[in-house]
Amino acid sequence: MELIVQKYGGTSVKDTARIREVALRIAATRKKGAQVVAVVSAMAGETDRLLKLARDFSERPSERDLDAVLSSGEQVTSGLLAIALNAIGCPAVSAQGHQIRILTDSAFNNARIQDINTKKMSEFLNEGKVVVVAGFQGMDKEGNITTLGRGGSDLSAIALAHALKAKVCEIYTDVDGVFTADPRICPNARQLKYIFYEEMLEMASQGAKVLQTRSVEMAAKYHVPVMVLNSYNNNPGTLVCKEDPTMEEPVVSGIASNAQEAKVTVRHVPDKPGVASKIFERIAKEELVVDMIVQNSSREGFTDMTFTVPKTDLPRAISAMEQLAKEIQAGSVDSDSNIAKVSVIGVGMRTHTGVASKMFSTFAKEGINIQLISTSEIKISCVIDSKYMELAVRALHDAFGLEHEPQK
Amino acid sequence: MELIVQKYGGTSVKDTARIREVALRIAATRKKGAQVVAVVSAMAGETDRLLKLARDFSERPSERDLDAVLSSGEQVTSGLLAIALNAIGCPAVSAQGHQIRILTDSAFNNARIQDINTKKMSEFLNEGKVVVVAGFQGMDKEGNITTLGRGGSDLSAIALAHALKAKVCEIYTDVDGVFTADPRICPNARQLKYIFYEEMLEMASQGAKVLQTRSVEMAAKYHVPVMVLNSYNNNPGTLVCKEDPTMEEPVVSGIASNAQEAKVTVRHVPDKPGVASKIFERIAKEELVVDMIVQNSSREGFTDMTFTVPKTDLPRAISAMEQLAKEIQAGSVDSDSNIAKVSVIGVGMRTHTGVASKMFSTFAKEGINIQLISTSEIKISCVIDSKYMELAVRALHDAFGLEHEPQK
Repeated sequence: MELIVQKYGGTSVKDTARIREVALRIAATRKKGAQVVAVVSAMAGETDRLLKLARDFSERPSERDLDAVLSSGEQVTSGLLAIALNAIGCPAVSAQGHQIRILTDSAFNNARIQDINTKKMSEFLNEGKVVVVAGFQGMDKEGNITTLGRGGSDLSAIALAHALKAKVCEIYTDVDGVFTADPRICPNARQLKYIFYEEMLEMASQGAKVLQTRSVEMAAKYHVPVMVLNSYNNNPGTLVCKEDPTMEEPVVSGIASNAQEAKVTVRHVPDKPGVASKIFERIAKEELVVDMIVQNSSREGFTDMTFTVPKTDLPRAISAMEQLAKEIQAGSVDSDSNIAKVSVIGVGMRTHTGVASKMFSTFAKEGINIQLISTSEIKISCVIDSKYMELAVRALHDAFGLEHEPQK
Repeated sequence: MELIVQKYGGTSVKDTARIREVALRIAATRKKGAQVVAVVSAMAGETDRLLKLARDFSERPSERDLDAVLSSGEQVTSGLLAIALNAIGCPAVSAQGHQIRILTDSAFNNARIQDINTKKMSEFLNEGKVVVVAGFQGMDKEGNITTLGRGGSDLSAIALAHALKAKVCEIYTDVDGVFTADPRICPNARQLKYIFYEEMLEMASQGAKVLQTRSVEMAAKYHVPVMVLNSYNNNPGTLVCKEDPTMEEPVVSGIASNAQEAKVTVRHVPDKPGVASKIFERIAKEELVVDMIVQNSSREGFTDMTFTVPKTDLPRAISAMEQLAKEIQAGSVDSDSNIAKVSVIGVGMRTHTGVASKMFSTFAKEGINIQLISTSEIKISCVIDSKYMELAVRALHDAFGLEHEPQK
């Protein structure tokens, strides 16, 4: 019998009415003859409520105990969904991380899954039961409760799908799937039937919020097919899968956009060995998450170093860089938070040329100045003035003809 | 170093401000040189909230999953209190039932503790940490989460105090201790310095709500000294302990009262062997909790059988008895829910006479008619019209001179 892992996020289980809908969907999947392992998040808002309680005592609550608090949200949903399933005559059992032994390291609040013991789950499944797993949580080898960090329930689901050799991991959200661009920005954005892991990875890290980067990485690593679906309807979703030569590889699959970052430039940096490493050592020490890094070519022994950080980290980044600039005798530190990053993504870029020039000429035609450029094998990102972000996305979407299905 | 188990109920941890107060109290106990194991309930109202969510799906939610849901309340409090302790510099760890292995049977929703493994807790204590145990929960030998039923956190605390050979189990509530009568009924009720297990057992089952009957039974079984205290002040509490010949044994320790029961009488029951057992078999089948049972002496081969049940069970009791009355060819079934039970309790009754006559004459003086009488070695209970309950309690309190400390 085939096995399907279904993951339901916070908005899909936000109240008992929604949990009942999820139960009906799972029961329908069972009726079609599949075994189901359901992975659930906390009810929408619950994790934030618990975090707020913990922060009443300390800005940095003791990490081990915080995980005991936070993991309770998923525990409640798993119990409730199992109750809902049993109540409609679909046999089910709830399962916590410590019960099915989702073993993690001891990095509380951000643990990594190391091993999953499938014995207990297989027993339940063979008894004809749906196993409702509390996502986001595991336990370390000491028996401590751990949590997996933001988006952790997706990780749980994908790791379980891999461990159980599931046919597919279905991720239920409140959107229909992955689109060629953010539909709120680009009204003729088209839903993708499939997208390759690498592309999804770029989409995710560029600000598409359907799946977290870590989840896509894990799915790619273990070749777990992931279907993104909407728990509020029965529309076909988007399959996230590995590249397959029999599938069409469009040059450009989608446009990603992100206005959550700010730009920091350290001017007049002495261009000699070891200086760049000093800057990024400091950034690492401050635990700043840097996205783009651009170093201009040197002029008269000096260069400018620019990088982007999440807007919320900008004050910390500026103060760290101003201190460092003195130490390394660099010039001023400038910053700009009115920026947006717009990226063109597609595995077809590997074999097709002309994507960059079409992107830049599109910007030129619209009078949009490019501030920073960064490229990878399957992506070109440009930082522009944030006020042009929507315009840029729509113009690129048109330029690459993304409203139409690709032709072979 | 001496070890103290402190249990904090729902009102003592009802919000983060109260949890902070509890943390300060524990830290103060630590400073005096004692090791502390704290046992916590769910924040006030939380268990009811979770139960309500579960009942949205079914009047009888699947029991195993319900325990996963309900146990989360204590899990959250244990994490929060450990966070609060660490935040004020008092090292602490939260501990769930499955982590310190509070082994129970598999009677979900009402499990019994079978064994407690103290190894992990002793390690934590020896590291100088306060162990904050989630009360009310355990796990069975399959690793399923179980809960211990109403008042379960008291049971957890007393079982832990026994297993860890604690000096005392302190139960923190929102009252100062055990009184000679309900202070809301009897303004000159006096707080007891100590009360013996057996007396407390009668007080508890007669409606005094400070400690549940099961907890007192367990404390008595293992001779765990229990100190009932108020978490809102530093007043001396009431010690619940075993009888000790060096301690004063007053004839009467307290007056208990209870208006939560109703009376059922089956009239004209054929007085022959096996009929009483038929009645109580039926009661057992209906899972009715019967308190008092009185059978009048037979007259002309027939008798009346009267018993009391919780008011909430009265409709079920009546319909079961009406059915049975037909089967055994008894007469009518009468009921009365306007009754109250008032009891005089004290271990000194064993060696002193005259308590019953003083009780009855007090009622007579006040013009209170006695409907039923039931006695044990250390207790006399009378059922009266509920409108006289408060009057009866005050009159008995005066008659037995309970406002004064007993003299040797």
